[in-house]
Amino acid sequence: MPDLAISYEDVVDAQERLDGVAHRTPTLTSMTADAIVGGQVFFKCENMQRMGAFKFRGAYNALALFTPEQKAAGAVAFSSGNHAQATALSARLLGMRAVLVMPNDAPGSKVAATRGYGGEVVLYDRYTENREEIGRRLADEQGLTLVPPYDHPHVMAGQGTAAVELFEDVGLLDLLLVPLGGGGLLSGCAVAAHALSPDCRVIGVEPEAGNDGQRSFRSGEIVHIETLKTIADGAQTLHLGNYTFPVIQQMVGDIVTVSDAELVEAMSFFASRMKLIVEPTGSLAAAAVLQKKIDTEGKRIGVLLSGGNVDLARFADLVKAAS
Amino acid sequence: MPDLAISYEDVVDAQERLDGVAHRTPTLTSMTADAIVGGQVFFKCENMQRMGAFKFRGAYNALALFTPEQKAAGAVAFSSGNHAQATALSARLLGMRAVLVMPNDAPGSKVAATRGYGGEVVLYDRYTENREEIGRRLADEQGLTLVPPYDHPHVMAGQGTAAVELFEDVGLLDLLLVPLGGGGLLSGCAVAAHALSPDCRVIGVEPEAGNDGQRSFRSGEIVHIETLKTIADGAQTLHLGNYTFPVIQQMVGDIVTVSDAELVEAMSFFASRMKLIVEPTGSLAAAAVLQKKIDTEGKRIGVLLSGGNVDLARFADLVKAAS
Repeated sequence: MPDLAISYEDVVDAQERLDGVAHRTPTLTSMTADAIVGGQVFFKCENMQRMGAFKFRGAYNALALFTPEQKAAGAVAFSSGNHAQATALSARLLGMRAVLVMPNDAPGSKVAATRGYGGEVVLYDRYTENREEIGRRLADEQGLTLVPPYDHPHVMAGQGTAAVELFEDVGLLDLLLVPLGGGGLLSGCAVAAHALSPDCRVIGVEPEAGNDGQRSFRSGEIVHIETLKTIADGAQTLHLGNYTFPVIQQMVGDIVTVSDAELVEAMSFFASRMKLIVEPTGSLAAAAVLQKKIDTEGKRIGVLLSGGNVDLARFADLVKAAS
Repeated sequence: MPDLAISYEDVVDAQERLDGVAHRTPTLTSMTADAIVGGQVFFKCENMQRMGAFKFRGAYNALALFTPEQKAAGAVAFSSGNHAQATALSARLLGMRAVLVMPNDAPGSKVAATRGYGGEVVLYDRYTENREEIGRRLADEQGLTLVPPYDHPHVMAGQGTAAVELFEDVGLLDLLLVPLGGGGLLSGCAVAAHALSPDCRVIGVEPEAGNDGQRSFRSGEIVHIETLKTIADGAQTLHLGNYTFPVIQQMVGDIVTVSDAELVEAMSFFASRMKLIVEPTGSLAAAAVLQKKIDTEGKRIGVLLSGGNVDLARFADLVKAAS
């Protein structure tokens, strides 16, 4: 069995680093959700995290671990949105420069928020250009340190702190469902679950249109896919990471998928029943539970709501169409 | 000084009655809100209460105190929406019948939800008919007990439990801002504040278009106004109550008003920054704070978000227009 990129101790260290900097987000419940799934559901509300998503945890942890030289030069990140905002905000809090490579079709609210945090935004075409190449070129040219959106031990450890808080709040769980893009959140949370609730089955949830994670998990090799279209813009990753995949292989129980229509239904549930705004990607895990993609009967179920950054006009159009 | 309709002990009794029945709603904070007001703001999220508003507290407390004969016959309530849902749900939980008199222009979601809780809905025209007369006639004809939406000691005591929880969560406050319609929530919360944080200045906030509360408070007599149009449909009350007014006179520091545009701005703030859906009426107190209608500098401020029941399509239109 290969050594994994992070241990539970790395997650605990990240938690200390984030103490007083990240929000300790609330864990909310809903009698209606419990009735639908026939179990007890605990929603960890990372849509209420600083800058609106869990990504702040990983980015801040990574930037805080820069050497003085790296801090002096600054950070560069490529991201469909939330990781860009997270890196920009973390850099500002740590007094650093940040350059963000973002797709030109990213939600306007995410681009604007990234600039609002003082980030320098470089736009690219998701369908013709390679963001990793652009990011690496900027890193080489300007001496910036690249902060990958998910495939980095410090990022993974930071994301895992969300699950630590959840277990601290609600105790042992039978199931923990986590949105899956590149696997940063899923791997970090799986490491936390393994330590704090060893019998908890951890399940990743990704968009039906981009089930590379599920295929990788089942085949035992990282599957690369073509650019995909889904409303879950934060999970449009093309493959799992070299650091995240082994953790997922070893500590995750299964990976399931949900459709865009199921995401919209979950978003409408949160809006009408829990008065929460959750972005499409943030609703992945919840959609799997509400649609009973897994057996939830009589179980205690943790659900990561990973973010809430959605243009209000777009949110309105989605939930209106579903209502 | 006249005897007031309720004492703090009544609120404590209500809290015991509601224990395990009402949600203990979360108190949330926002760094952005703190920065705007120059103080520390604590939002008590009654938009996350059962049926989506604080009204459940008062209605359940009132119905739970019915005599066996009253319980056997059932309850009747007149309401622009949330009190109807609250009465319907409380009646169902207590195994009683409930008839709800609702305006025919009430939000469709509120009428549907009331029926969903098993309530029997009777619609009337807000501009030509008197809901109190209709309610009293139904009570006479069918032996139902009328549960007024605000002007009843048991209702007032139930609403005050929201403030008790807030003080339990955050300790002493300098200011507590509460939405004001007929004064049920404001009077109950004022009694709680008086006991738990005696130096806390309690402020009621009502729609600019219907400032009967402010005029009553300043003139010392209950002022009746004409039917008003405001997006704050839960605060379209025409006068304070005979029970609520003396409490407000004695225990409330001031009453301020906000415009519909300011309500929409507050709703957009909650949606974009805190990922919360708050209905127009529910945003009254928050709008007053965010618009700095009172001096908030350096203060610890409690803000009651009283409800979140707004048609999603309507919510979408309001925040889209403002974004």
